[in-house]
Amino acid sequence: MNQHPEYLLNKIKSPADLKVLNLEEMTQLAAEIRQLIIEKDAAVGGHLGPDLGIVELTIAYHYVFSAPTDKIVWDVSHQTYPHKMLTGRAYAWLDPEAYDKVTPYTNPDESPYDYYAIGHTSTSVSLATGMAKARDLLGGSEKIMAVIGDGSLTGGMAYEGLNNAAMEKGNLVIVVNDNQWSIDKNVGGLTTALAKLRASQGQDPENPFKAFGFDYRYVADGNDLESMIKAFQEIRDVDHPLVLHVNTLKGKGYEPAIRDEEGHHWVRPFNLTDDSPKAAPAAGPSAAQVAVNTVAGAIDAGKNSIMAITAAIPGVFGLDSFKKAYPDHYTDVGIAEQDSVAFAAGFAKAGGRPVLFENSTFLQRAFDQLSHDVAANQLPVVMIVAGGGISANSKTHVGVFDQVMISNLPNWKYLAPSSLAEEKAMINWALEQKDGPVAIKLPVRPVPAEGPVLEGYRHIHYQKRRAGKQTAILALGDMQKMGREVAEALDASLYDPLAANVLDTDCLDHLARHYQVIVTLEDNVLDGGFGQKVASYLADRPVLVKNFGEKREYTDVDQSYEQILVRNQLTVKQITGSISRLLNEQE
Amino acid sequence: MNQHPEYLLNKIKSPADLKVLNLEEMTQLAAEIRQLIIEKDAAVGGHLGPDLGIVELTIAYHYVFSAPTDKIVWDVSHQTYPHKMLTGRAYAWLDPEAYDKVTPYTNPDESPYDYYAIGHTSTSVSLATGMAKARDLLGGSEKIMAVIGDGSLTGGMAYEGLNNAAMEKGNLVIVVNDNQWSIDKNVGGLTTALAKLRASQGQDPENPFKAFGFDYRYVADGNDLESMIKAFQEIRDVDHPLVLHVNTLKGKGYEPAIRDEEGHHWVRPFNLTDDSPKAAPAAGPSAAQVAVNTVAGAIDAGKNSIMAITAAIPGVFGLDSFKKAYPDHYTDVGIAEQDSVAFAAGFAKAGGRPVLFENSTFLQRAFDQLSHDVAANQLPVVMIVAGGGISANSKTHVGVFDQVMISNLPNWKYLAPSSLAEEKAMINWALEQKDGPVAIKLPVRPVPAEGPVLEGYRHIHYQKRRAGKQTAILALGDMQKMGREVAEALDASLYDPLAANVLDTDCLDHLARHYQVIVTLEDNVLDGGFGQKVASYLADRPVLVKNFGEKREYTDVDQSYEQILVRNQLTVKQITGSISRLLNEQE
Repeated sequence: MNQHPEYLLNKIKSPADLKVLNLEEMTQLAAEIRQLIIEKDAAVGGHLGPDLGIVELTIAYHYVFSAPTDKIVWDVSHQTYPHKMLTGRAYAWLDPEAYDKVTPYTNPDESPYDYYAIGHTSTSVSLATGMAKARDLLGGSEKIMAVIGDGSLTGGMAYEGLNNAAMEKGNLVIVVNDNQWSIDKNVGGLTTALAKLRASQGQDPENPFKAFGFDYRYVADGNDLESMIKAFQEIRDVDHPLVLHVNTLKGKGYEPAIRDEEGHHWVRPFNLTDDSPKAAPAAGPSAAQVAVNTVAGAIDAGKNSIMAITAAIPGVFGLDSFKKAYPDHYTDVGIAEQDSVAFAAGFAKAGGRPVLFENSTFLQRAFDQLSHDVAANQLPVVMIVAGGGISANSKTHVGVFDQVMISNLPNWKYLAPSSLAEEKAMINWALEQKDGPVAIKLPVRPVPAEGPVLEGYRHIHYQKRRAGKQTAILALGDMQKMGREVAEALDASLYDPLAANVLDTDCLDHLARHYQVIVTLEDNVLDGGFGQKVASYLADRPVLVKNFGEKREYTDVDQSYEQILVRNQLTVKQITGSISRLLNEQE
Repeated sequence: MNQHPEYLLNKIKSPADLKVLNLEEMTQLAAEIRQLIIEKDAAVGGHLGPDLGIVELTIAYHYVFSAPTDKIVWDVSHQTYPHKMLTGRAYAWLDPEAYDKVTPYTNPDESPYDYYAIGHTSTSVSLATGMAKARDLLGGSEKIMAVIGDGSLTGGMAYEGLNNAAMEKGNLVIVVNDNQWSIDKNVGGLTTALAKLRASQGQDPENPFKAFGFDYRYVADGNDLESMIKAFQEIRDVDHPLVLHVNTLKGKGYEPAIRDEEGHHWVRPFNLTDDSPKAAPAAGPSAAQVAVNTVAGAIDAGKNSIMAITAAIPGVFGLDSFKKAYPDHYTDVGIAEQDSVAFAAGFAKAGGRPVLFENSTFLQRAFDQLSHDVAANQLPVVMIVAGGGISANSKTHVGVFDQVMISNLPNWKYLAPSSLAEEKAMINWALEQKDGPVAIKLPVRPVPAEGPVLEGYRHIHYQKRRAGKQTAILALGDMQKMGREVAEALDASLYDPLAANVLDTDCLDHLARHYQVIVTLEDNVLDGGFGQKVASYLADRPVLVKNFGEKREYTDVDQSYEQILVRNQLTVKQITGSISRLLNEQE
């Protein structure tokens, strides 16, 4: 039920309804939108600070410009709650029963005002430049704008985009939404430039945007609706590339989000009374905490050459306390995964021991560095990868591609622990060895704290975890649990293959001789994955192989994890049935 | 035999021998090095302009600094012929019989003065920053320098590196070797900034390096040895990050390379008398020319929305004449693959028809955009990929990873033509369809000009090219020729599977019923490739499958193409023998 039937927002069915409001009414609208962001985030979680900061800019945009003819590309699109509310989707904030009816990022399937599924940083300028170029070639006249935050500007792709946007011949506006923060505090040289521009009201001569050839304007208070409207009106019909540098306050309207911006970039459900989290913290350490603790433990034990490296996502791992305890052993390069990986390569080459803390989906930006800088140079870089697995995430954030990306490169060893104890042992071994790069895939599904561990993982020997007959199940990483359930249902043998990309050919030869069916199970897309390697290795022998994993397709938030399993024939019941049928056919 | 026994260079066994020379002697050395670059390139080809331009800078570096304790990271490392000559490897220029004894890029296996295998652009700043950071943590005092060209600065990773280099607490020098050119003419906003700095002798206030917080110096003539030595002496002991902006002349000392810098960035063997190429041009169009001609033909036929897009490698495809003929349908984004792909996504979204011209190995930088921007948005981007296949390239330039990268993503269709006619038909179909992104893998091995074509390639139906028995061979793309030879030797059936990542399951079901052995053959690394998908699909049936392709390891210039085939069991004889043995085992 609509919790705020009295809100002016109820009358805004599209931006056209906004255009007839006066400043006072739009100011009221801003207050309503802020209240709704806070209420919904408190109830179900979501991005908070970025959306609170951009309310006035969004209202001003839709007041001055004519979407969807005019096009706006929101970088990351995690700041689009106000945009969604103004483009016919306010019901998903007004009515708690409709909270899940609108997705968290821009979504062309949801609205004609959204042009792309976007969830990664630093792409907006390139996308907008492509749109401007097509407009010019096709003879259109729509206005094109990209909105990019200062944090997203640290990604090299934003710079590539700016470099080319500056050459565009027609209308193109890049709004730099400068709130002095990225996910973690902004890191790097650009911070200096933006700070000087803010301090000088945009007048400082050391202006990187002007240096690139952009026309440049500055808005001192981007949370002042009148200023924002005026600024947009002045540049609406510009016929060349222009950077509009807007100073906004992330978290505006919710004091805890201003005091602790990093902690309120994205929030879990919280109590409105005191900002405390609604859910009790999980009992026992998470896989991420085990990783950080293991690295910290190695430093305590005397490994002084360790450097923990993150690309602006310390929060994913809880690295904040590590940073405080080991400041000399911590580097945050900002949103710059390419740099993070090559920086780690340089650090390893010079005798240090780098430990990268990366997120599966964002790590995609560093594929070339994983190959060219690390693998081709066989450098002992250690990399912890979070979020690698089947999930009900937004389609821009699925974590099923990093394993394919990393594990098909030469020299990389991609380990997949099936318990927290195994994870710890693998990290400790990775920190000791000097053979080459080692990635460790953090379990994303619950795994036991305890479990068997080995002295080392240099040579991969598949570990037998259950003795059975007819069928041997190789269940990778956090799929061990499901593998065990299937094995028990079928009285099959169960193995832990330890690594996503190193075959224990002795073991496979043995299994091929002693079992009718060999099953692989992985928390990953099938194509290019672990199972296909096993299938290929055994393909010229009579033994049957069955690979289980996800189909090669994007999933999205409209499917639950369980639904995705069903759709991919990945429930215990489905897998068991599938193997049983295969065994029956043989008899 | 040493062609120049009288050269002073013969006495330089290491940089230590350089330090006792006077300016006049070093000037003579520069002339000798230049002459040797030209002589060897004329004989066997290689990078020309970049090496001619950097002679004095290199001499000055080794005169002032103390390698290999002090470390220099050469971006791309295609400009390191002078460096190699001064670090004990001059014999590979002095003696034509030794021309192939030294590799073309920095190579740690070759010399302690080389720290990395490097062949891709824009990585040097990150690598050097990592080294500086490790030095600081480990208490070292060596000086760290990166040398990066202006072209390489357009790559976003360079910017990420600069952003973090600016925060380094100790010694770190970034030399910007500004020769006003990249592989193609520099593109983008940074050109403007560098031009202003050159025009003002480094005094222009719109200085992006200073804006980032770097200390900054300018050298007006980087080909003046005395200036370069003085500049290096002044900054040798700097205790903070500094950008040394050096103006050099690419191609200096060889007039044709100055007049046509782009054409002399990298050269094939040429005649010293008139700069004419030694080899006659190939008869008939290449696969790259067919691609460009097909796109041009589509524009001629009225497809006005086409945009050919390259990331600074028009020469790979011969796009220069296309650019002249169709200036409105051509965009070069500079060395910025991430931008090129997202720009194409934006262009497609706005109703245009983008055609990306990419090189397998460099395309690795755009993996995330292929996924996040193109595939997740299912945009009809057309992409022509050159260089994708097994080759005797440097290990930083092998082309066997793009297929794994692209073809395991959802929504992408990766077509692999086996004749020039099929290539043309596939491109024309790709330009018509709107289903989603289509990549076309240009043959890298010779393929016939003519061959069967289909009306369209929306649905992939494997094409039978030869009828035989017992064995069915699926030979992808330019492996058709080898597949045919094997098929004829074995009287096997031969199929053209058309696509690297779309299985014709009806055909595979049929083959599984009618053949004993199904063979896949691809010009690619096996892991994550086409064959493993076929093996996985058929793994739960009695039919045997044998995948042929390259092992997951880097090859390098020390092996010929033929040696690589032998090593991977990929000669016709080896494949035939392997299949014969498998058939015999069955009988």
